[in-house]
Amino acid sequence: MAITSNTRTAAHDIDPVFLNRWSPRAFNGEPIPQEVVMSMFEAARWAPSAINIQPWRFVYAHRNTPQWEPLFHCLMDMNQAWVAQASILAFILSDRHRRKPGAEPSENRSHSFDAGAAWAYLALQANHLGWAAHAMGGFHVEKAHTALNAPEADYRIEAAIAIGRPADASVLPESYRAREAPSGRQPVESFVFEGRVSALT
Amino acid sequence: MAITSNTRTAAHDIDPVFLNRWSPRAFNGEPIPQEVVMSMFEAARWAPSAINIQPWRFVYAHRNTPQWEPLFHCLMDMNQAWVAQASILAFILSDRHRRKPGAEPSENRSHSFDAGAAWAYLALQANHLGWAAHAMGGFHVEKAHTALNAPEADYRIEAAIAIGRPADASVLPESYRAREAPSGRQPVESFVFEGRVSALT
Repeated sequence: MAITSNTRTAAHDIDPVFLNRWSPRAFNGEPIPQEVVMSMFEAARWAPSAINIQPWRFVYAHRNTPQWEPLFHCLMDMNQAWVAQASILAFILSDRHRRKPGAEPSENRSHSFDAGAAWAYLALQANHLGWAAHAMGGFHVEKAHTALNAPEADYRIEAAIAIGRPADASVLPESYRAREAPSGRQPVESFVFEGRVSALT
Repeated sequence: MAITSNTRTAAHDIDPVFLNRWSPRAFNGEPIPQEVVMSMFEAARWAPSAINIQPWRFVYAHRNTPQWEPLFHCLMDMNQAWVAQASILAFILSDRHRRKPGAEPSENRSHSFDAGAAWAYLALQANHLGWAAHAMGGFHVEKAHTALNAPEADYRIEAAIAIGRPADASVLPESYRAREAPSGRQPVESFVFEGRVSALT
């Protein structure tokens, strides 16, 4: 059964939370209460991970604090233009290794994949509370390793995340206004295969 | 505000769906209606991804179909022992490349991370419908590339996923029964940092 919410139509019946979560750029700059921040990270905390290693790490800053500037300057200019009005800027990292007391660190094949699950739950919880989270790949990777104090040999920096209270598109620089709308998706049939992959898609 | 559900306690108030989702091994083998299967993939469909590339792919089989055996034999023996009673066995893959008409495929830095988000939403929707999904890293990677018809140069195989109707732990081989319970997590303070990573954790 198709369902529609947030201008999107799902071809198969799902909890509307998945349609309602989206990635706006227009934020109102409102300070975010610390309990809301912790609630988002708490949702991420309960993500599943290989052997329950929990490889995700988050580094964040509130706007208008001394911690904000070093993180903000890791973003590419095009993202600085709208993230300036976010309430929180975070980076999600993954620990590349499985670390057990008394053993050499070993490769964790699933560190990026599992961090993606943690990000996904953070974003849903943000939406649940009336806020929104928008992940970005547009940041300077080397600069971020330095700013976050996260050596490349230990951590992969997966994404930057802007979190804020959604606002009207008119607060955005003009070039961003037209695309300030929930995005669509390819149909399920394009990415789900029974038995084996039948074509490169 | 701490909340408790599914034997777990969250230190900060969150939607209980994140506590209620877990990864059981005990399934009852019940056939899963195709509309439920499609509903899970539909939830995955609405995950966020870098530049909306949607790099996730799923290959699945219903138990007791000809498609099941080739996928099942990609699992390590320890997982075959309990996945035998699942209703669906799926693999989640990610397309390593960004593919645009008229352009050479280019690296997508975020393919594993974004696939992890799709998996996370599938798992929540499964729980929402009274089913459960359990991801595993314990499969033979090379064998799976062949069985799924998914060349290593194009796809990374991220995880195997068993989906079924939760059952009593007594259906499991004895060695699995004692750990058939929702797992705990490290505290938020161990993976969240304001400003910069303050210690390797």
